[in-house]
Amino acid sequence: MIKQFILKSRPEGIPTLANFEIQHITLPVLNDGEIHLTAKIVSVDPYMRGRMSDAKSYAPPYEVGKPIFGGIVAQVKESKAEGYKAGDYVLGFLPWQQEIIVAAAGLQRIDSTIAPLSYYLGILGMPGLTAYFGLLDIGKPKKGETVVVSGAAGAVGMVVGQIAKINGCHVVGIAGNDEKVNYLLNELKFDSVINYKTTSNIASAIEKACPSGVDVYFDNVGGPISDAVIENMNGSGRIAVCGQISLYNATETPVGPRIQPIILKRSLLMQGFIVSNYAARFPEGFQALTGWVKSGDLTYSQTIMKGFDMLPEAFLGLFEGKNLGKLIVEV
Amino acid sequence: MIKQFILKSRPEGIPTLANFEIQHITLPVLNDGEIHLTAKIVSVDPYMRGRMSDAKSYAPPYEVGKPIFGGIVAQVKESKAEGYKAGDYVLGFLPWQQEIIVAAAGLQRIDSTIAPLSYYLGILGMPGLTAYFGLLDIGKPKKGETVVVSGAAGAVGMVVGQIAKINGCHVVGIAGNDEKVNYLLNELKFDSVINYKTTSNIASAIEKACPSGVDVYFDNVGGPISDAVIENMNGSGRIAVCGQISLYNATETPVGPRIQPIILKRSLLMQGFIVSNYAARFPEGFQALTGWVKSGDLTYSQTIMKGFDMLPEAFLGLFEGKNLGKLIVEV
Repeated sequence: MIKQFILKSRPEGIPTLANFEIQHITLPVLNDGEIHLTAKIVSVDPYMRGRMSDAKSYAPPYEVGKPIFGGIVAQVKESKAEGYKAGDYVLGFLPWQQEIIVAAAGLQRIDSTIAPLSYYLGILGMPGLTAYFGLLDIGKPKKGETVVVSGAAGAVGMVVGQIAKINGCHVVGIAGNDEKVNYLLNELKFDSVINYKTTSNIASAIEKACPSGVDVYFDNVGGPISDAVIENMNGSGRIAVCGQISLYNATETPVGPRIQPIILKRSLLMQGFIVSNYAARFPEGFQALTGWVKSGDLTYSQTIMKGFDMLPEAFLGLFEGKNLGKLIVEV
Repeated sequence: MIKQFILKSRPEGIPTLANFEIQHITLPVLNDGEIHLTAKIVSVDPYMRGRMSDAKSYAPPYEVGKPIFGGIVAQVKESKAEGYKAGDYVLGFLPWQQEIIVAAAGLQRIDSTIAPLSYYLGILGMPGLTAYFGLLDIGKPKKGETVVVSGAAGAVGMVVGQIAKINGCHVVGIAGNDEKVNYLLNELKFDSVINYKTTSNIASAIEKACPSGVDVYFDNVGGPISDAVIENMNGSGRIAVCGQISLYNATETPVGPRIQPIILKRSLLMQGFIVSNYAARFPEGFQALTGWVKSGDLTYSQTIMKGFDMLPEAFLGLFEGKNLGKLIVEV
């Protein structure tokens, strides 16, 4: 018997442990073309909150009574698929199970000699590619411009800031505790970092940290923090809407100042995106990110929890801002 | 003595006649390089509301005690500038005066044999170019897609809808009275038009009028009408933010549902713009618009008021939606 996490019920507002349940299942027989995997590292990501609800979004909702799915690094235990043998490592969008039988077709082989396996869930995986395409394709930062990133100490945000630095920008991060602020300032060399939890007037803090105004805003959080940044945007500024974690648990439609007047007056561009929009260009992004990791221009931090049973708790921690960098669970 | 309108005071909320004042002035001597003009047709446009306030916007504010400026078609009375002679027609951004002395450099010569003079303030002028670039460059409508335009019976909106039809789109307009609705349906062949003043649930009216969802939204008005359209946007939809007339007279920051979550979930693009962003491409736009006017693909409607003294009243009428098409004043 192996363990599996299912969606027990859909959350109203903030998810709780009661929304998840462990089931004990028996795996089916391994057929031709399939692989028997052992889960090694499981990713927990903010976007998964959206899939727990029944609302229309870019990703189809999880089904109640069915397993949670997400990014998982797994090792091949037994293979009946050509090209895979026991011991190989793969990355896949897979059910939260200790072991999994799956068709080989949807898997991506990963190379543990290039980078630690966990990096394929982070800096070299979905969050890294999200940062790369969102910042460069939507934000289009030019040398000397000012880039602000919210959720700056998260899996995506810390990559955004570093790519902006590589591009010669003045980089300002927004994060939620002093450990994060210090890490971004001292380790990642952000030019300025605002602790939004201890700053009473975020708009004026942004203004101070961005003496030439804000040219690019990479938005991971939404809500009043984003209002404060947008107020400080320069003409022809670009806003990449990557996440809205501050609003994901809202039970009523969030209300705030209308932004179209400022978008109009300053000729701003705002573009929402999901990384899969750029699937055709993943090899380009992977190559660039790998290069920067090797050269040391891009460093990375992870928060690691251990144990399969910890998965829901790890996920819930995202909404309390507990993680510095990518949050992963070794199972 | 000639008449001139100055900004007497800045409006709080809705502008009134008391914000304007007529002064009687004497023109200076005509110097070399200058032209003495007689104003013929004066444009009143929603964007001018922004310039009456002191707030930061794309256009610098009018100064209290100084003349109002705007688009004017004028005739040369006397010229000391090379290339201009009495009787020529010009278009310029000029003070609201019956006669004007101005350097020739900032003027654009216009040809009354191509189209009626008033068209240079409308379909072949700033509003036409605004429609052309906003729709085609930001909206990027593809054949068979659905385009929604608010302020559809205004100077810009009616051109937007017709260019969308020329591009093979399903076109839905939003307007504020039955005369406008009938004109758009019967004369301009919009596929569907919603009277927002007599429709209780605009979102469901949009849904009904757009069975395939909304791919492009050309926004002239903002506020709850735009909320209703955005709710119905398809994935990868485009929103051109051209005007926000419903909010221009607000005395406090307008509040509404936050739109970033939907922009994120559906990978929407929202771009604010002002026509001068496209100045380098005006010849392209002018040529296309002229061609469609000649071929009859693009028709046009104007509301004409008469008399220099009527200028403030004409301008104020814009905010009551009195005009069908471009509102101009023959002076």
